[in-house]
Amino acid sequence: MIDPAEIAVAHERVRDRIHRTPVLIARDLGLDAPLEVKLENTQLTGSFKVRGAFNSLLSRAVPQAGIVAASGGNHGAAVAYAARALGHPARIFVPELAGPSKIALIRSTGADLVVVSGTYAEALAAAREHEARTGAIQVHAYDDPATVTGQGTLMREWEEQGLDGVDTVLIAVGGGGLIGGALLWLQGRRKVVAVEPESCATLGAARKAGQPVDIEVGGIAANALGAKRIGSICFDLAQRFDTPVVTVTDDAIEAAQHRLWQGLRQWVEPAGATALAALASGAYTPEPGERVAVLVCGANPAPGPFD
Amino acid sequence: MIDPAEIAVAHERVRDRIHRTPVLIARDLGLDAPLEVKLENTQLTGSFKVRGAFNSLLSRAVPQAGIVAASGGNHGAAVAYAARALGHPARIFVPELAGPSKIALIRSTGADLVVVSGTYAEALAAAREHEARTGAIQVHAYDDPATVTGQGTLMREWEEQGLDGVDTVLIAVGGGGLIGGALLWLQGRRKVVAVEPESCATLGAARKAGQPVDIEVGGIAANALGAKRIGSICFDLAQRFDTPVVTVTDDAIEAAQHRLWQGLRQWVEPAGATALAALASGAYTPEPGERVAVLVCGANPAPGPFD
Repeated sequence: MIDPAEIAVAHERVRDRIHRTPVLIARDLGLDAPLEVKLENTQLTGSFKVRGAFNSLLSRAVPQAGIVAASGGNHGAAVAYAARALGHPARIFVPELAGPSKIALIRSTGADLVVVSGTYAEALAAAREHEARTGAIQVHAYDDPATVTGQGTLMREWEEQGLDGVDTVLIAVGGGGLIGGALLWLQGRRKVVAVEPESCATLGAARKAGQPVDIEVGGIAANALGAKRIGSICFDLAQRFDTPVVTVTDDAIEAAQHRLWQGLRQWVEPAGATALAALASGAYTPEPGERVAVLVCGANPAPGPFD
Repeated sequence: MIDPAEIAVAHERVRDRIHRTPVLIARDLGLDAPLEVKLENTQLTGSFKVRGAFNSLLSRAVPQAGIVAASGGNHGAAVAYAARALGHPARIFVPELAGPSKIALIRSTGADLVVVSGTYAEALAAAREHEARTGAIQVHAYDDPATVTGQGTLMREWEEQGLDGVDTVLIAVGGGGLIGGALLWLQGRRKVVAVEPESCATLGAARKAGQPVDIEVGGIAANALGAKRIGSICFDLAQRFDTPVVTVTDDAIEAAQHRLWQGLRQWVEPAGATALAALASGAYTPEPGERVAVLVCGANPAPGPFD
């Protein structure tokens, strides 16, 4: 079991290299009450992933062969960005599913990019083959202690900034690195609700089966939340803290994207609006008096405004 | 002369109705150093204008005839929003130049909207005629004490949040309500640099002439910064504090819009990127050791992502 104190160590390691992303009380998201949100979409490279990327690269020796990663897009951009900042070569494998915007984002970092046909799972297989052949260090997108503790810095930071009186935090789930880090940091001090698109419901499937299982993934958030199987670190934490899982439809996600623009002028990809979708659609209904907050975990809409 | 203490009064009056907009240190806007920015583009209705609007409506008795305002778009949306929140009827006059996005934004508040051919000046003339005929209260977009003290709440709020060690704040100028409020609040404690598009350089023209003068306005920021003549409240404050004025090209503004997306995933209209453009283009070059901060004053790009 990872020690939650590792998150504090990771935070001190990365905080001068990343954005301390803003928290505000949004007053008009079309909900019954104001809502505290953290705008992690303003993070470098457009998502929380750069936290785990910097933590991974700064907590181990990097060989001459450099770094390798597989990604639906955001993790690859983050690893490529951190590698460039630290002067390491990086090879990033992405599936075609990543789409032209995210592929262009990764390319813009100067990384050596390989586009693989298929989904994230195929990109991961290619990255593992590269790792075995070259000795490059693999930075896993979610199921690695350095990644999870890096992502956990988000919740530590948020508790420094706000969450006063907040009982429950809603977080979108893909492979589970982010929510795993949040669960690890919080140790049950606050309730965490896992939100999944119904077409990428890996944690829900694992909770039902009693163990991580492969599922088919699809839908509008698939290039960010489309891991085939929940990470084991996240799964163990979700079992330990009995984390509730709710699902949302693609339509609810799109509606939440609109709300974030209307109410906050934040334009985010589907994954970034998924947690809000649970609250706005009623997929998650707080108990009377329960105070909730929502994480906006990533931007990177495709096409973006200047694509 | 307005008492700066009025800004503190205004702030207490409006703070529970508006967003306390986030401040963060942006690490990768392509500049030599990290930069403190305040993201007022996340404000309700997408710009700072709602501060002055709420302050105006909450600091005077509103007759049955309600409210009237003229606007290039953002002020009209803000007044309409505040009027709806407080239960007053509002008639808003906008020039065609406001464009379909801002016109739709105002309409979405349920305001009674009149589109006038020509520019802001023609909309203002129509609003004045309506005021005289009906007894509605006119909320001026920039040259009214209640508007200026309302906009001044932004700088008071920012000093509560940050600006530690910051010498100089860059602010875009249209009619001068926002920068007027900032100058009034700061009383020379920090340097304020006024940034104008070269095609809407009303403050620069007034400073050169020694008094407010009419100019021709145009360019990509004209529907937000295109007042024909600087407000007298702002002009007097700029004279008193000897406020430097710099101009930027439309190309520099567009480049700054790109930087805000690349580095912070904020998509803003030209006016919102104008202050950053001065720093990024070199139109304003800080002295060695001078620490600067930049205000992102509005969002509302046209077309927006869901238009």
